[in-house]
Amino acid sequence: MSENDNALSDELLRHHLDQVVELLEKQKLEEAILQHQEMPRHDLIETLLHKQHQAALKQKLDQLHSADIAYILEALPLEDRLTVWNLVKSELDGQILLDVSDAVRETLISDMNAEELLTATERLDTDEIADLAPDLPYEVMQDLLESLNAQNRERLQSVLSYEENTVAALMDFGMVTIREDITLEVVLRYLRFRGDLPEHTDKLFVVDKNNVLKGVLPLKRLLIHDPDTPVSELMAKDVVSFRLDDDADDAARAFERYDLLSAPVVDSAHRLQGRLGVDAIVDYIREQSDEEMLAQAGLLQEEDLFSSVWKSAKNRWFWLVINLFTAFASTRVIGMFEDTIVKLVALASLMPIVAAIGGNSGNQTSILIVRSLALDLINSSNVRILIVKELGIALLNGAVWGSAIGLATYFLYRNIDLAMVMAGAMLLNLLVAAIMGISIPLIRHKLKQDPAMGTSVMLTAITDGMGFFIFLGLATLFLV
Amino acid sequence: MSENDNALSDELLRHHLDQVVELLEKQKLEEAILQHQEMPRHDLIETLLHKQHQAALKQKLDQLHSADIAYILEALPLEDRLTVWNLVKSELDGQILLDVSDAVRETLISDMNAEELLTATERLDTDEIADLAPDLPYEVMQDLLESLNAQNRERLQSVLSYEENTVAALMDFGMVTIREDITLEVVLRYLRFRGDLPEHTDKLFVVDKNNVLKGVLPLKRLLIHDPDTPVSELMAKDVVSFRLDDDADDAARAFERYDLLSAPVVDSAHRLQGRLGVDAIVDYIREQSDEEMLAQAGLLQEEDLFSSVWKSAKNRWFWLVINLFTAFASTRVIGMFEDTIVKLVALASLMPIVAAIGGNSGNQTSILIVRSLALDLINSSNVRILIVKELGIALLNGAVWGSAIGLATYFLYRNIDLAMVMAGAMLLNLLVAAIMGISIPLIRHKLKQDPAMGTSVMLTAITDGMGFFIFLGLATLFLV
Repeated sequence: MSENDNALSDELLRHHLDQVVELLEKQKLEEAILQHQEMPRHDLIETLLHKQHQAALKQKLDQLHSADIAYILEALPLEDRLTVWNLVKSELDGQILLDVSDAVRETLISDMNAEELLTATERLDTDEIADLAPDLPYEVMQDLLESLNAQNRERLQSVLSYEENTVAALMDFGMVTIREDITLEVVLRYLRFRGDLPEHTDKLFVVDKNNVLKGVLPLKRLLIHDPDTPVSELMAKDVVSFRLDDDADDAARAFERYDLLSAPVVDSAHRLQGRLGVDAIVDYIREQSDEEMLAQAGLLQEEDLFSSVWKSAKNRWFWLVINLFTAFASTRVIGMFEDTIVKLVALASLMPIVAAIGGNSGNQTSILIVRSLALDLINSSNVRILIVKELGIALLNGAVWGSAIGLATYFLYRNIDLAMVMAGAMLLNLLVAAIMGISIPLIRHKLKQDPAMGTSVMLTAITDGMGFFIFLGLATLFLV
Repeated sequence: MSENDNALSDELLRHHLDQVVELLEKQKLEEAILQHQEMPRHDLIETLLHKQHQAALKQKLDQLHSADIAYILEALPLEDRLTVWNLVKSELDGQILLDVSDAVRETLISDMNAEELLTATERLDTDEIADLAPDLPYEVMQDLLESLNAQNRERLQSVLSYEENTVAALMDFGMVTIREDITLEVVLRYLRFRGDLPEHTDKLFVVDKNNVLKGVLPLKRLLIHDPDTPVSELMAKDVVSFRLDDDADDAARAFERYDLLSAPVVDSAHRLQGRLGVDAIVDYIREQSDEEMLAQAGLLQEEDLFSSVWKSAKNRWFWLVINLFTAFASTRVIGMFEDTIVKLVALASLMPIVAAIGGNSGNQTSILIVRSLALDLINSSNVRILIVKELGIALLNGAVWGSAIGLATYFLYRNIDLAMVMAGAMLLNLLVAAIMGISIPLIRHKLKQDPAMGTSVMLTAITDGMGFFIFLGLATLFLV
């Protein structure tokens, strides 16, 4: 791909989408009119008008960048999406499959036969094939492997053997290697002789004859120094490099910290295995933050906006059922106090407040702990300070907002004891929330579980149950 | 800064933090021992041992990259943080201030006098000064402005005049410009003559004598083509460029879509004004996703892990109070039905379930809508399909999980009418949740408000209130 030909502003992109939608609408309108006239289907397809619109649509699509077609496909309902997909130039198919979200990719791939898939994917780089691999049918993957040369086949199999969130899964093979004993002049001639450089090359990798990484030569240094200088004199030796099995999160943080554009990936013997580029890191960061956001709202994964009701419902069931169970469990506490409630029914309308504020406050604490754990900021030497601080905040909030809610309760029910029970329950449940907000993520982290996932559900279940228990318990002791 | 000298792996970084903490601990232990012996404070400072530790600490810090010192400062409680901060080489101060989080920056700046701040910030680039500007005291900013040359002063004032989430606020001025009528050979000689290139340069900007952008020359093309070729023949003319007041979110998406490393920023007359780099975009994406995550948990902004109880509490009050009000309001519905509850107290323990599941399910819907709005995937032509789909899911979930919860209710209370009211309320509240989950973000988007902020609070308030109302209302109609 040349330097961003046809790249568009967001506004223009929206405009293109509108035009595509318009063309699709016209086409469908005609189909409807023709169907109304009860023409047989194959005559309809042949209609001149229909063909005209299709040609206009195809012309429109041919002008667009693969990433923009990917965006348009995401925004179209299934039927329209497949109409457009079938009009796209086949040489863009592979790139578009890479650009769309997982959910939409599935719908596109299921519309393609093995041959089409092979044509689309054969053009891709090895690391790109690896990205698509989980979604490709077994036979297509076999054919693809056969179509690759020995080196690329080995690379593909090696990448596929690593887990999803490792550096190996994110790297590409667009690395240009040179030796340290040549001069910049020779490097410049070599690059001109190659006649091409991989996308996003900002540095050349210096290796010895065993492919062991000796250093990197940033293009910047190549450009500003005297051509007679040997590479060994200019190369940076002390560079950030990653191991194949390094955690992708760690790599992403290193890219952010050191503002990297690319970095070499090496094996345990420090042999160069690939290159990690900032484009892969940007995609990774975005995917991770999307996943987190979806998980927090109780979704298993990204959804195709236009997937079937059935498919979407299944994506939401896991957490919905968990919530159903926890809601059921925490409200069983209320059942224990039914006698108390009958005697003082105001408790029924006050108890959800105690539970809700506990949940909110606990979530505030836990999100900060989860975030600090992700940034590696918490260690044995500072955890005590954190606990003291969070308990302090809970006490302060309990005193201030417990009093406020107690006062409100008094004005509503003119019952000073009820108001004090309300204030006390609030304070105690905020303390419970702070303790849980710290300890749940810390314990999960210690157990090597992801503290981001499910912590909120667990926490809310506990602050609900404890909120009901503390409030109704205090009421039973002091009010009835 | 040279090519990532001293950059570290995450593991090594943790190790360094541990060492710093250890040195600090030793130092404090000594202080404690000496204090126990009741030595006057100034003698203590002079103690040989103390000095040794300090020297060891300083030596350790001197080896580290500014970003790594920033990480260590984030992980230290306030007192230790300032001890370390005062030992850091002053030439790194400015860079470290840029690297730490906003909350920690505040603690560091408040420990510096005007002179120190001026020394630290004078070394920075204009765009970096702009990043720090909101945190700097007025006099320091005035002194800084005076210390700049006319061009940089003008640039700084121009950048500061743009809003935070615009391209202008993210751009830097590290652009190298050339004319189109020269050959690559001349460009190469010019670069060697310059002797330096700004960080992250991947392309040169081709401008005319009025500084109007004509195209870009990627370094890649410069390197692989015959030096006799004129720039005009090789430059890319149709490039993604941004306007000063373009939305930073749109720019970030364009960087992701087209895998950009840098892009020119122009004014309304297409004159080159600056450069947008992927490093700024990576930081922006991370900041945005952090902010979203914190906002979702009800925090106004990032917190310094070790800020005071008072400061942290204030950061949490806004949403806590909003939640207090909505919880109070939604539970007032229960007050209307107190007679019903007294007659059938089981309602008290069942009603929170209806409310909770409504909230969960509505949040699932709303997060997908918020996300699709952010990606610009929703338009007038597909919104109807979405509504139908979400209502379909609500009906399906209501039928399946309503029945399940109805059955559970029957087994608990052996009351078939109560079970049916429970199932019916569940179904209806899921429909309410779906409608609200779609319409709240859509309406806020239409009103040009950020649909991510506060949608969850509003939604939960409604699903709670409606959940109580539907459930207790049905119970009043059919059960008592």
